Amino acid sequence: MNFPSKLIEEAVTEISRLPGIGKKTALRLTLHLLKQPKSSSQTLASAILDLREKTRYCKICHNISDAEVCSVCESPKRDNALICVVEDLPDVIAIENTSQYNGLYHVLGGVISPLKGIGPEDVHLESLIHRVKHPYKGVKPEEIILALPATMEGDTTAFYLTRKLKDEIVKVSTIARGIPVGSELEFTDEVTLGRSIITRINYSAE
Amino acid sequence: MNFPSKLIEEAVTEISRLPGIGKKTALRLTLHLLKQPKSSSQTLASAILDLREKTRYCKICHNISDAEVCSVCESPKRDNALICVVEDLPDVIAIENTSQYNGLYHVLGGVISPLKGIGPEDVHLESLIHRVKHPYKGVKPEEIILALPATMEGDTTAFYLTRKLKDEIVKVSTIARGIPVGSELEFTDEVTLGRSIITRINYSAE
Repeated sequence: MNFPSKLIEEAVTEISRLPGIGKKTALRLTLHLLKQPKSSSQTLASAILDLREKTRYCKICHNISDAEVCSVCESPKRDNALICVVEDLPDVIAIENTSQYNGLYHVLGGVISPLKGIGPEDVHLESLIHRVKHPYKGVKPEEIILALPATMEGDTTAFYLTRKLKDEIVKVSTIARGIPVGSELEFTDEVTLGRSIITRINYSAE
Repeated sequence: MNFPSKLIEEAVTEISRLPGIGKKTALRLTLHLLKQPKSSSQTLASAILDLREKTRYCKICHNISDAEVCSVCESPKRDNALICVVEDLPDVIAIENTSQYNGLYHVLGGVISPLKGIGPEDVHLESLIHRVKHPYKGVKPEEIILALPATMEGDTTAFYLTRKLKDEIVKVSTIARGIPVGSELEFTDEVTLGRSIITRINYSAE
């Protein structure tokens, strides 16, 4: 593609580096920006700069944060007896958007993957053990909920964590694996369906 | 959607202002930027800023340009006897990418639209007349090719321009309207098919 201006070419090149955005879309966005008032380009540019330069990570749960300790860890409304362990930030956002969870989080920043060379020391596991022993607000956690991906790596991490937490007087659970709400039995893969039978929920006991 | 950080929220809001990008895509892009090295956010931000602040418009053809006169108008390789009149910048890029045209351009910056209140004085029509009378490099244009949209507004602009250029000794032509290459007759709309019969090309005369 030929561009009449180096500046346009640069903007298109940079924008098309983003995932899922090709040259054509990048050109469309560039031409859109050109037609907007200067202030909108400035706000966009500064939001991108601030995002990368000013964001910090919570020293307790490693979630992204505007301060040293994130709003979830700091909040007096959250249940300090629950810690939900997740792989990364999008998982926190996804769980928060369900409005079904009111405890704390612990963001590992990855999962153990021997194939990719990611060991237990490369993710925030030690700080979780430390948190269980020495809670930030003094409230001992009662349950650690593992909300890790349903993959080999996720399971490895879950297994490692369960063993590490064996000596602490804390319950370790995992989020349910089963058939998604609204889906048909016949179209569900066998592994998921098999698991959902094994980990069935006893209605009469409730 | 809830965000754990104001900075993420701002970035998502700003990115989702772009056309065709919703909140979910914006969040995906934001999280991607967070994982990239700082330098890539900086290059992206400065490309966006430079684009809006440094781009200039060619004083001859109103195309976007890095200097006072654009590279097309300045080039010694382009045919100064041809001027192609287009509505806006994307049209220049589209024609340039065909590699079928080697003349100059004239970017109107819009088309006459009485309904939208855009009159002849709101688009760069006067400067085209001026260009024909006083060419930038002294080479009198021989042909003005109208490459305007095939709409009411495009036709109005073409009609106005043809009348304005009546007194100049210059040929005025328009790009062909007809059946797109690769398409079937039966699926072409009647207006296009009708026009393509009226404006048929005489093979024996070539």
